[in-house]
Amino acid sequence: MHFDLDDSIALLERTPALLRSWLQGLPSAWIHCDEGPESWSAFDVVGHLIDGEEHDWMVRARIILGDDDDRRFHPFDRFRHLDLNRGAAFGELLDRFADLRAANLADLRGLRLGPDDLTRTGRHPEFGTVTLAQLLATWVAHDLTHVAQIARVMAKRHDEAVGPWKAYLSVLGDGR
Amino acid sequence: MHFDLDDSIALLERTPALLRSWLQGLPSAWIHCDEGPESWSAFDVVGHLIDGEEHDWMVRARIILGDDDDRRFHPFDRFRHLDLNRGAAFGELLDRFADLRAANLADLRGLRLGPDDLTRTGRHPEFGTVTLAQLLATWVAHDLTHVAQIARVMAKRHDEAVGPWKAYLSVLGDGR
Repeated sequence: MHFDLDDSIALLERTPALLRSWLQGLPSAWIHCDEGPESWSAFDVVGHLIDGEEHDWMVRARIILGDDDDRRFHPFDRFRHLDLNRGAAFGELLDRFADLRAANLADLRGLRLGPDDLTRTGRHPEFGTVTLAQLLATWVAHDLTHVAQIARVMAKRHDEAVGPWKAYLSVLGDGR
Repeated sequence: MHFDLDDSIALLERTPALLRSWLQGLPSAWIHCDEGPESWSAFDVVGHLIDGEEHDWMVRARIILGDDDDRRFHPFDRFRHLDLNRGAAFGELLDRFADLRAANLADLRGLRLGPDDLTRTGRHPEFGTVTLAQLLATWVAHDLTHVAQIARVMAKRHDEAVGPWKAYLSVLGDGR
């Protein structure tokens, strides 16, 4: 059940720069390609990450650490960004994500969390009792899941173009 | 069989900056964590990408475009880096990859490839006849595959720490 707060912050604070280095100014065919109907492009994923900064991670951390006896989380809408960001400039989404993430990590550091804080709990709408450590560990893994998703989605643009090499490229091999 | 050379170069040239923004200075627990015996860490993946710059992509492109009637590729050693980079400084590997990639892309641009060049062929040791377009498309997809791999490997460090959220994080769900 290893969770290291400093290591986690180190990763969380790098995600905006990684996304900018990778995606800013990239031809829009890469930014908007997806895996078919109902699937997400890199553009959509960045919108979803913004929603997480605004409505998920630190909002829930504050519920866990707050004085209210009712520590139920509000459900998180995983599709909110799809309408919200229609027509937005991708560079502005990258900037917004970077600003929100920086502000949230400044708040997180300001909490000066100790080991006891990390065991405090909230109530997830589906899972029931969860700890602050689990929430923060998930924030990190969630970033990484979506980085992997963006790489996979863009790789699939070359699904046919790679010809026989497809056999070597496991990321092209199935629907994930 | 869509392959766009300019779009491909745009992606290939961003990979070194993406890896630096993400991994440089990150706690070594992230850089060296792997998925168990025989699996690769982020450190190992960067070593493998260096090998590709030195012995695979542009070496093979030159065989395809060369005057020699024998257009057989040399086999590529996918494990060369494991001994070669033991004890190396990770920052130096990132720098070396960036230098090699920049030089290779300068060479690629210098070739001023046209549509006819992209249909020229070489002989892969396993697959037989492959085209230059397939080789270059694979170079891009190969970068993306390994970006996805690094994200997955680091996410797995939180495999247990995320608690019940594991159900939502598909990247943690199986052995890939």
